[in-house]
Amino acid sequence: MAVTFELHPIGRVRSPIQSREQAPKQGDEEAPEAWLEIDPAVAEAARHLRVGEEVVLLTWLDRADRSVLSVRPRGDERRPLTGVFSTRSPDRPNPIGLHRVTVLEIAGGLRFRVSGLEALDGTPILDIKPVLRRARER
Amino acid sequence: MAVTFELHPIGRVRSPIQSREQAPKQGDEEAPEAWLEIDPAVAEAARHLRVGEEVVLLTWLDRADRSVLSVRPRGDERRPLTGVFSTRSPDRPNPIGLHRVTVLEIAGGLRFRVSGLEALDGTPILDIKPVLRRARER
Repeated sequence: MAVTFELHPIGRVRSPIQSREQAPKQGDEEAPEAWLEIDPAVAEAARHLRVGEEVVLLTWLDRADRSVLSVRPRGDERRPLTGVFSTRSPDRPNPIGLHRVTVLEIAGGLRFRVSGLEALDGTPILDIKPVLRRARER
Repeated sequence: MAVTFELHPIGRVRSPIQSREQAPKQGDEEAPEAWLEIDPAVAEAARHLRVGEEVVLLTWLDRADRSVLSVRPRGDERRPLTGVFSTRSPDRPNPIGLHRVTVLEIAGGLRFRVSGLEALDGTPILDIKPVLRRARER
């Protein structure tokens, strides 16, 4: 499929996690709090986010290997090679991270402190979406 | 933020929905079944998907307006203008769609029939991820 699309990051993650080796595998596994720094150019899009709100954060996992199609889940050599669409491996053709986090603090309308996030320091932010409160949440 | 990233679609949605006017606002609002057609180049990544499995489908909403930062939710003129990061509007800086669907049928390892999907026919597919079965699902 020859067509491509261009992502323009809308901010960056600021986190104490500096490398993949330090990162928990998932956000609910003792991941630290982090700050989301949003680009002033999209401040209008972020102005209704509120403390206490749960959101889905989309990131670009810029240190992932996009050529990987199969992995051993959680890097466990005893587990069989598994197609990446059946895993949450960051290594995949389009390494978009999905993270469910809660907004804990808002500073100056552009900086958002959030709960347990497994993304590395400097990770580009692509989007923020509200969690849907419906029978079938996405 | 000057840096950009390039998405390479890994497939396309085939759906009876041909226009935004025909599309339901969310997948749980009487959205039709659809087929996901996966690029043979990434067949290896899809080979462990199974019928009955619930997955998160990520799409590129290629008919969205990326310049939009505020909308009236659900196009309702009585509702106030709301920053898009607090809405599920397809119009947003990086129009990535998140859809929770169930695999209903697999044909030839590359075509997947899925439950209620609100994406338009021809929508590029970016990624498929398993739903996390944990205390905090993302």
